Amino acid sequence: MTELQNDRFLKALCREPVDMTPVWMMRQAGRYLPEYRKTRAEAGDFLTLCKTPDLACEVTMQPLRRYDLDAAILFSDILTIPDAMGLGLYFEQGEGPKFSKPITRAADIDGLFIPEMDEELGYVMAAVSVIRRELDGKVPLIGFSGSPWTLATYMVEGGGTKDFAKVKGMMYDRPDLMHKLLDKLADTVTVYLNAQIACGAQAVQIFDTWGGILTPQDYKEFSLQYMQRIVENLTKENEGRKVPSIVFTKNGHCWIEDIANIGCDAVGLDWTVDIGEVRKRVGDKVALQGNMDPTVLYAQPERIRKEVASILESYGSGNGHVFNLGHGIQQNVNPDHAGAFINAVHELSKPYHQE
Amino acid sequence: MTELQNDRFLKALCREPVDMTPVWMMRQAGRYLPEYRKTRAEAGDFLTLCKTPDLACEVTMQPLRRYDLDAAILFSDILTIPDAMGLGLYFEQGEGPKFSKPITRAADIDGLFIPEMDEELGYVMAAVSVIRRELDGKVPLIGFSGSPWTLATYMVEGGGTKDFAKVKGMMYDRPDLMHKLLDKLADTVTVYLNAQIACGAQAVQIFDTWGGILTPQDYKEFSLQYMQRIVENLTKENEGRKVPSIVFTKNGHCWIEDIANIGCDAVGLDWTVDIGEVRKRVGDKVALQGNMDPTVLYAQPERIRKEVASILESYGSGNGHVFNLGHGIQQNVNPDHAGAFINAVHELSKPYHQE
Repeated sequence: MTELQNDRFLKALCREPVDMTPVWMMRQAGRYLPEYRKTRAEAGDFLTLCKTPDLACEVTMQPLRRYDLDAAILFSDILTIPDAMGLGLYFEQGEGPKFSKPITRAADIDGLFIPEMDEELGYVMAAVSVIRRELDGKVPLIGFSGSPWTLATYMVEGGGTKDFAKVKGMMYDRPDLMHKLLDKLADTVTVYLNAQIACGAQAVQIFDTWGGILTPQDYKEFSLQYMQRIVENLTKENEGRKVPSIVFTKNGHCWIEDIANIGCDAVGLDWTVDIGEVRKRVGDKVALQGNMDPTVLYAQPERIRKEVASILESYGSGNGHVFNLGHGIQQNVNPDHAGAFINAVHELSKPYHQE
Repeated sequence: MTELQNDRFLKALCREPVDMTPVWMMRQAGRYLPEYRKTRAEAGDFLTLCKTPDLACEVTMQPLRRYDLDAAILFSDILTIPDAMGLGLYFEQGEGPKFSKPITRAADIDGLFIPEMDEELGYVMAAVSVIRRELDGKVPLIGFSGSPWTLATYMVEGGGTKDFAKVKGMMYDRPDLMHKLLDKLADTVTVYLNAQIACGAQAVQIFDTWGGILTPQDYKEFSLQYMQRIVENLTKENEGRKVPSIVFTKNGHCWIEDIANIGCDAVGLDWTVDIGEVRKRVGDKVALQGNMDPTVLYAQPERIRKEVASILESYGSGNGHVFNLGHGIQQNVNPDHAGAFINAVHELSKPYHQE
């Protein structure tokens, strides 16, 4: 493998000194970029884009050509796993993801197909390999998966939901079934992330998009414990280097100490917490990733710089900060504003990394 | 006025002793009740239901006929204010609320019509009066309003939104405009709630549904300070009795101490916090209202009782707890489950109120 030219991101995740704060953006390969929209139009639809390694590689590389980003992230979708398990993922125009065969009863869980990483999910592994080759050591590549709980919400609801009625109905009434489902998902996610690492992912992130809709007790029982099991069983080192893990629970403010205790290297933060206060709460146990409100990118560059400065100041000096948005970049953002954001992080963070 | 037969709810809000924990449900007059669906079908549409005092009264009374609730809440909508300000509220089938004339520029804010309480909003005040007469002292009546920030999100977005792109774009880029809008809304909400009190509302709640999507600093600047101004200017006493106020910011976990400091009598909690821990954080400054996950009502009665017991135990003995769901009751809930919930609160809470 080619030597990594920029390891700022990996170092920050391991709380090692860096020259400036590394930055990447969740959903950085996405619809706000005209070149992404072009590639997607050529692919025909979103799933073809995900399932064709050369196209997934192309859109992964696009933001790196524009911006001075410190990491690439595999272009994929969290729902590749339930799709490979046989639920039949499809996207309806303007409707979000849907499953043709959602989980509705015990037999659906018993009958879940456990996918093979070099078969049903081979296209993801191929994409990781192609992207690593194309990156050629420029920046590290992040692999990812949805958390078991987050995947379960889509699988039981049959798609996106506002009220989580079905999945919580099952959780409250048949916790035994829910645990059976989460157990299978935790095993599959572990194998999935380790396969991504084996193919070249240099860090991994678990997206727990819907953990934040649970009560504190249910969060621990139905989301956190499964993420802990995954983190414990992740490949810790590859290519002679540590493979750090990031856990991101959206709206997980109240439980950040608990997340920091499961053995991950970094915790992702949305924008509803002050990163400096969180740093005080968790001490030097983990690195922190975040936490700018993605809608700040709708503002003019001067306002964006001000927000970046404020988050850097709140975090303060020292190691362990990866700058990011608190959620994915939105589709109507001006790409120049994303550039202004990334440059501001690098430029304004240098004073926080002297000595 | 007839003497109030059940003042458990008002007493609990004022942290006075009660015989058992009072309970009501946000959106208790709603689609989960077949009698509501019948009245709504007869009315033709939702807005007619809101704007016809006798119909609003009928649906307000419906849950009280079924359940041993400790309070009634005015049947209305938070968007009555922007509608009265001339934005043209309408509802599209399955689409949620929309405005035909959303706020898009400075002139729209300058040109906002300030509604008269006995004219454009006269139907709300008439409903309050009719409901008070119909209640005949059975239980107290809660009046309510959306918070200025929450109303502003709908007014700028032109309806519901997932990404808050427009309203946050304005907030970040033109905070001067946003403050001008919020200033007008705070004045109007104050007058609106005081008019409801004058017509007979015995407690008021401010619904800050979207305060929780802000950063900690922006929450204080764009939501909390305006709610504070409203609370400071509310009528504190009517009919010889204190009129308590409740502030409910959904997803406001991180800021509960700040909310408790604005002078309100009670703070509403969603289900993502442990009510016992919050009680420790705020001390005896305010009463707490909440905080059962509304989806627990999809579970069987035995599971519902268990959840009620757990929340009562977490709050512990003593005054200042109003039981409620952490958000509105969902439309597919079995009405018998709501009954089991209410009975469980009364039955299981008695031991916490001895001495």
